[in-house]
Amino acid sequence: MNKNEMFRLLNVNLDMAIEAHELLRGEANAEVSGVVMTQEKSAYALVTTIVIETEEGARQMGRPIGQYVTMEAPVLLSNDYSAHHELTEILGQQLIRMMSLDESASVLLVGLGNWNATPDALGPQVITKSLITRHLYQFTPETLKGKLREVSAITPGVLGLTGIETAEIIRGIVEHVHPDLVIAIDALAAGSLERIGASIQLADTGISPGSGVGNCRMGLTEETIGCKVLAIGLPTVVNAAVIAHHTLECLLDQLKTSPALYRIYQELNPQMTQQILSEVLAPFHGNLMVTPKEIDTLIESSARIITGALSMSLHPEINEQNYPAYFQ
Amino acid sequence: MNKNEMFRLLNVNLDMAIEAHELLRGEANAEVSGVVMTQEKSAYALVTTIVIETEEGARQMGRPIGQYVTMEAPVLLSNDYSAHHELTEILGQQLIRMMSLDESASVLLVGLGNWNATPDALGPQVITKSLITRHLYQFTPETLKGKLREVSAITPGVLGLTGIETAEIIRGIVEHVHPDLVIAIDALAAGSLERIGASIQLADTGISPGSGVGNCRMGLTEETIGCKVLAIGLPTVVNAAVIAHHTLECLLDQLKTSPALYRIYQELNPQMTQQILSEVLAPFHGNLMVTPKEIDTLIESSARIITGALSMSLHPEINEQNYPAYFQ
Amino acid sequence: MNKNEMFRLLNVNLDMAIEAHELLRGEANAEVSGVVMTQEKSAYALVTTIVIETEEGARQMGRPIGQYVTMEAPVLLSNDYSAHHELTEILGQQLIRMMSLDESASVLLVGLGNWNATPDALGPQVITKSLITRHLYQFTPETLKGKLREVSAITPGVLGLTGIETAEIIRGIVEHVHPDLVIAIDALAAGSLERIGASIQLADTGISPGSGVGNCRMGLTEETIGCKVLAIGLPTVVNAAVIAHHTLECLLDQLKTSPALYRIYQELNPQMTQQILSEVLAPFHGNLMVTPKEIDTLIESSARIITGALSMSLHPEINEQNYPAYFQ
Amino acid sequence: MNKNEMFRLLNVNLDMAIEAHELLRGEANAEVSGVVMTQEKSAYALVTTIVIETEEGARQMGRPIGQYVTMEAPVLLSNDYSAHHELTEILGQQLIRMMSLDESASVLLVGLGNWNATPDALGPQVITKSLITRHLYQFTPETLKGKLREVSAITPGVLGLTGIETAEIIRGIVEHVHPDLVIAIDALAAGSLERIGASIQLADTGISPGSGVGNCRMGLTEETIGCKVLAIGLPTVVNAAVIAHHTLECLLDQLKTSPALYRIYQELNPQMTQQILSEVLAPFHGNLMVTPKEIDTLIESSARIITGALSMSLHPEINEQNYPAYFQ
Repeated sequence: MNKNEMFRLLNVNLDMAIEAHELLRGEANAEVSGVVMTQEKSAYALVTTIVIETEEGARQMGRPIGQYVTMEAPVLLSNDYSAHHELTEILGQQLIRMMSLDESASVLLVGLGNWNATPDALGPQVITKSLITRHLYQFTPETLKGKLREVSAITPGVLGLTGIETAEIIRGIVEHVHPDLVIAIDALAAGSLERIGASIQLADTGISPGSGVGNCRMGLTEETIGCKVLAIGLPTVVNAAVIAHHTLECLLDQLKTSPALYRIYQELNPQMTQQILSEVLAPFHGNLMVTPKEIDTLIESSARIITGALSMSLHPEINEQNYPAYFQ
Repeated sequence: MNKNEMFRLLNVNLDMAIEAHELLRGEANAEVSGVVMTQEKSAYALVTTIVIETEEGARQMGRPIGQYVTMEAPVLLSNDYSAHHELTEILGQQLIRMMSLDESASVLLVGLGNWNATPDALGPQVITKSLITRHLYQFTPETLKGKLREVSAITPGVLGLTGIETAEIIRGIVEHVHPDLVIAIDALAAGSLERIGASIQLADTGISPGSGVGNCRMGLTEETIGCKVLAIGLPTVVNAAVIAHHTLECLLDQLKTSPALYRIYQELNPQMTQQILSEVLAPFHGNLMVTPKEIDTLIESSARIITGALSMSLHPEINEQNYPAYFQ
Repeated sequence: MNKNEMFRLLNVNLDMAIEAHELLRGEANAEVSGVVMTQEKSAYALVTTIVIETEEGARQMGRPIGQYVTMEAPVLLSNDYSAHHELTEILGQQLIRMMSLDESASVLLVGLGNWNATPDALGPQVITKSLITRHLYQFTPETLKGKLREVSAITPGVLGLTGIETAEIIRGIVEHVHPDLVIAIDALAAGSLERIGASIQLADTGISPGSGVGNCRMGLTEETIGCKVLAIGLPTVVNAAVIAHHTLECLLDQLKTSPALYRIYQELNPQMTQQILSEVLAPFHGNLMVTPKEIDTLIESSARIITGALSMSLHPEINEQNYPAYFQ
Repeated sequence: MNKNEMFRLLNVNLDMAIEAHELLRGEANAEVSGVVMTQEKSAYALVTTIVIETEEGARQMGRPIGQYVTMEAPVLLSNDYSAHHELTEILGQQLIRMMSLDESASVLLVGLGNWNATPDALGPQVITKSLITRHLYQFTPETLKGKLREVSAITPGVLGLTGIETAEIIRGIVEHVHPDLVIAIDALAAGSLERIGASIQLADTGISPGSGVGNCRMGLTEETIGCKVLAIGLPTVVNAAVIAHHTLECLLDQLKTSPALYRIYQELNPQMTQQILSEVLAPFHGNLMVTPKEIDTLIESSARIITGALSMSLHPEINEQNYPAYFQ
């Protein structure tokens, strides 16, 4: 049984396209049909763009046709402020390119997740820091035009607190506010610990059903909410099943090292692996997140980078120099 | 110029029907045509029901035809827990009567106001404490039916944080969730300091435009959101203009006490009063709230009473004995 | 290498005495010299009292001579309110017994942990809900005496936010407030997922150095703060190393099942296990917590039980019937 | 009865030295013996330095010998970010001058006030945003020396939540942390609405007893806590008595305008004024605050200016360019 199948059995969701792509390419690093990957490296970041071009690519990748950009930057985890400044600028440039907004376009920011659960609080934090202008626009459009774009925002809360699917709430608002673009900010589940707090993903396809730390059941896509969605995500947790699986893999790798052990390895029933994992992860129905202790400060610093990048990509008046001044 | 006109000039909104009624009746305590008032007294509370029956009554009262119930209970300000228990029960009974819900009816709770401004945080606090069941209903309707009603909730945020009119947000959600009743909880502005934290108002007409501490611009009514609205309000502030006006009135009352002073009083230009008030209240465009220092604890204890009353009036399984156990 | 040694190598702290005791007794369930365990079972809870009586027992258990009471109650994880009521009463009785306070004794509550990190927020939440009376005592001691005990409280924050060791802060306050007892409330790290949110531990020895989710470096003991300390703890996380180790153990157990595999098992180098775990847990220096998604609601409901138990054990006026009314 | 006496009778505390000075100088603008005032004007701010030099000056001013600096800048109320940048720099310069810290000096920040009451939340907000280094200093002093000063912080909470006088808490911590300077940040009560959110006061005498929105009963001074205290304050409220008094004054000013009215004015009993005010302000024992609706955003933006000024004045590595990057 390969990793992909195992994760599906264990209900592990990989929110990052870059990881799904790696898994597919496997050790042979084979091309995936209908999927094109390009990379760009700078001092602090590796930006990987994965374009799913065909239905076949979409099927294999388990996510819709579209563009997935990941900025990998381990320096996100440190307190190197000048590096963070540069990352903000890189992210801002990518956002400008992916949004390609008309001059008069308006945007609705959606902060997904739960204020009361630290690893899930990224979305609400970005909303709190962001500059909101839609209500000002109604009074003094002429003084704002060309300087600050029309931006509204909502922090809808999670299903457990509202009893309402997030997509239902957003669809209702979209029908009244008529934004040209919805930007949804969410915390993601990664497939490896190294990614936590160290990458930011942009996807022009929105948010897939079942993804995110809070597990957005219906997803947020053009189909479910009636407006194009750009998703911004930061991995903040890893499903505990990933840790358990990784541990087993490491042991099995060891078993392969001697011919005698290798024979044993081959005798091991693949079902055994699944059975072990199920047993270890039984409590809380496997709904177990692994997260580093310092996750609150990781989210805080990433929320600043995302908010800064949003500010400079949405508002003509805001640039790489003055963006920190516009934090709310 | 009478008080009513003065308040209008100074942009003072009286959110409580009972105060508007008192003002209209004046010192002569005259009946107001088209408005019927009844009262019921118990150990800790005076419950006043004002029914506006005609368009003429509505015009005079400055609010729509409908029913306005006020529970006045100064003991709300103290820490008398057994009294609070009784108030919860009284409020619950009034809610049951005013809602007269079908057995299968569903309800959407709306927590108006701003988390980040203490005197405006009543609505969000009640939502946080309330039991939400709609999402559970979708899975196990049979185990809930007849025990817990289908309740959803939203804390929409204020215009300054979202850029979107609250009524627009709620209308959008109503169109998707289709509740039979919206219950909106809000902090109110009172016309006298004595009312702060000491009364709770229920209105089956919803929330009038421009009312509430955060000044809900469009109001929340069946007209603006497309669903019947029951409003629950607690006065938490008094407009500073009320204090200034009251001070002047007290002085002028003194002037009337001697014949010599009375002549002077008559010479006083009514415009003078308005001019003085405008001058005193110029800063912040008169958007000045007066609130007691202990407002945070007043709101906390009232939020518990309102949540308890909502629980026992919405859910058959919850009663006067067990309601505290259902606080979230 | 046994589990105990492995956990030490991996820097895994087991905060619960009951788990340390189990490990020591091992599969043979041998008595541990100098340690006495008794158990009491009721409808919803199993209360285990472990008394470490000798220095030898203390050395083996890795914690000081004293009394450790654990209430195990899986029903803590459900929403069974009447069960929670009973657990509150059981915990209250245990607190009364362990504190054995004089009628005039005063108490300082210390809410350890970090508001901003959900699994570490138990302490601050209990403080927020608790009734504080010391300042009232200074004005009207005669009306309070025999009804409400003198209780003060502090939420000191964690080292990363204050730059000061918690023990230093508390020692300073103790020297001025002179409480007869400090009660410290903290979130704990458990040795198995099943314990998360499902047990509450009381320890009359205070808090050991390095324990708790936020890792209280110096601990809170009579030695470090100059006052007797009773600790109340709820496990909210498991170190990720525990998951990884458990996974390996399960696999190795499988290997033992056939004679052929058993030979292989014996060939496995014990260092291999450690190496695998180190590799899997390398990111974030192994500072990785596993916690269920619903940890915020688990903490909320446990905070209510702990606050209720504290109220009824500290204040003569508060009992099993009226305690919910005293939540702040 | 003059204003000074009236405020004393009504228990109105004027927290700003600049207002006390104005009152003393009166309409005649007379010098106050033992008090020296100098002013410095720049594009956005008027900086007034009042030095109380003698005991006689201290007695008249109602506060201790020392230096009181007020930066008046109405632009604080607007969203002019480049102006705010300049104000941060001006405040930082004043802090450097008043603190005159040794290179190796350490500082304890104290965030006074109540998280849960918006107009009182300035102190906690500044602490949350500030860079804390003391714990890092213990590990890597050599890499920090000369770059980041040793800074610790505490948010002690208010008397109602802790039951402990703030001065007692801080004195205890000072005795263990041994800072060279305590910097206390607090929200203040002003004597006029125009000052709310529009001035920042620095005082090298600490915080006077009974001052601040939360009314620090014992004050925070070298005497009460055993360490020099620099206080940073922002007026966020006005006592409602000030509004009432101002209203009366305006009316009486009008009465003076004609000879006939002037005679009447003279007949008015001064006790009458006091009686009117007492009546108007009776509810909540006069503990009534007036605050603008937008106080939460005013505090947020001032907290940023104060945090920025603290950063650049405390840490050699932080300057006018890079300070926003160090916000936490």
